[in-house]
Amino acid sequence: MITSRTQVTVRYAETDMMGIVYHANYLPWFEIGRTTLLKEKGLSYLSLEKAGYRIPVIEVSAKYRRPALYDDEITIITTIKEKPTIRIKIYYEVKRGDELLVTGESMHTFIDMSGQPTRPPEAFVHKMNELFASS
Amino acid sequence: MITSRTQVTVRYAETDMMGIVYHANYLPWFEIGRTTLLKEKGLSYLSLEKAGYRIPVIEVSAKYRRPALYDDEITIITTIKEKPTIRIKIYYEVKRGDELLVTGESMHTFIDMSGQPTRPPEAFVHKMNELFASS
Amino acid sequence: MITSRTQVTVRYAETDMMGIVYHANYLPWFEIGRTTLLKEKGLSYLSLEKAGYRIPVIEVSAKYRRPALYDDEITIITTIKEKPTIRIKIYYEVKRGDELLVTGESMHTFIDMSGQPTRPPEAFVHKMNELFASS
Amino acid sequence: MITSRTQVTVRYAETDMMGIVYHANYLPWFEIGRTTLLKEKGLSYLSLEKAGYRIPVIEVSAKYRRPALYDDEITIITTIKEKPTIRIKIYYEVKRGDELLVTGESMHTFIDMSGQPTRPPEAFVHKMNELFASS
Repeated sequence: MITSRTQVTVRYAETDMMGIVYHANYLPWFEIGRTTLLKEKGLSYLSLEKAGYRIPVIEVSAKYRRPALYDDEITIITTIKEKPTIRIKIYYEVKRGDELLVTGESMHTFIDMSGQPTRPPEAFVHKMNELFASS
Repeated sequence: MITSRTQVTVRYAETDMMGIVYHANYLPWFEIGRTTLLKEKGLSYLSLEKAGYRIPVIEVSAKYRRPALYDDEITIITTIKEKPTIRIKIYYEVKRGDELLVTGESMHTFIDMSGQPTRPPEAFVHKMNELFASS
Repeated sequence: MITSRTQVTVRYAETDMMGIVYHANYLPWFEIGRTTLLKEKGLSYLSLEKAGYRIPVIEVSAKYRRPALYDDEITIITTIKEKPTIRIKIYYEVKRGDELLVTGESMHTFIDMSGQPTRPPEAFVHKMNELFASS
Repeated sequence: MITSRTQVTVRYAETDMMGIVYHANYLPWFEIGRTTLLKEKGLSYLSLEKAGYRIPVIEVSAKYRRPALYDDEITIITTIKEKPTIRIKIYYEVKRGDELLVTGESMHTFIDMSGQPTRPPEAFVHKMNELFASS
């Protein structure tokens, strides 16, 4: 299991007329979470894109328990529980302090620049083998 | 079962650097779908809000099969399959012509202006009884 | 002078906690306006991109008089007053019925796929000559 | 003159199919800039809203020199040059390292919860008098 924490402050632009964060705006936070996790493991998304790989979202879900509010300091906890194969499953917890606000999951595959499914790059496989051997 | 169709044209603002619609941007389309469905049944979301009700999303999920592209004409097919109780479950299909791009589901409850769970308004219950009796 | 009208319905996603359309969200409406204007003149932005041209925004401004609200039917009136040279200046009026809500302007140039400034494509120049001769 | 610096990392969600940050997405960064500036001066926007004041944008403009790209570390430099009266004018510079990418300006007024123009709160006036006396 590998995990990472990152922080965002809620932007005015992310709220809606209900006075809370608009539900779709948690998905970019999930993305910040997984971007940070990969970067911390030496696998920046930018370097993967430059090497010709893309990792689109093929499934996403979220459960909303309590709303995040403008100017809240939010922690996104991102976890990969199972060693990725040709798919990567990622779990998210969005918290304000100790209070759990939203949970979510996403599933990803690798595609090449022409949009065709492809195997993950060697560096990615190697790093995941290493991380999940030691975890 | 009640269903509705509505159309959007993909905006440049909705694309990302992968050259496709950013995955989070399908969720506002789902919202357009359910807004249209409710409005067609005489239950505009605006009138529900003015009557003191809000219908937040408590769960949402999406599966991405093929990407929508800039300037595509997109059809959103929105369906309520089961008569709503204190929860409403809504299904979505996002199509480009006959081609299915994305499917999704959302779950909603009713809350009052103070954010407390509440029973749906009488007009809503009545209309749903009528629609699901005849369907 | 060439002009065009197009309509949008305000999305819940476009509102903020002030209960009105978030100020940045008028800029994608300006874009819808100019996209429609170009398309009506046979110069779809998509075809320009496919021909290797991009038309980035180099300046934009907006003045906000009255706010647009959720579910409002909005008209965007887009106008090119002067024949474009290597720059295109575009004017916008955002209205709800007869009521003027927001005005704006944008300035654009042509660049090629490598991001370098370039002259507009022949078809664009020809069409603009034609339109501004007869206007 | 009062000034403030704040940082954002470009999100994937903020890019468009041109491969750069979508032009409208600089406006929320301007907002982060002014939010930070006010907060540093002890005038958090949240506290102003809680005291019954809102500070809508009545004019905004931006000039785009060079594009910000995904994962860039961006600095937003926010400046108030003239002591605010019933209007506040704010200037922005968006930089990547020493490289100036975008400049902008915004104009704001104070309104009350009913949307009517109002004088700024006492605490705001007092703080601005203090800051501009010493600057």
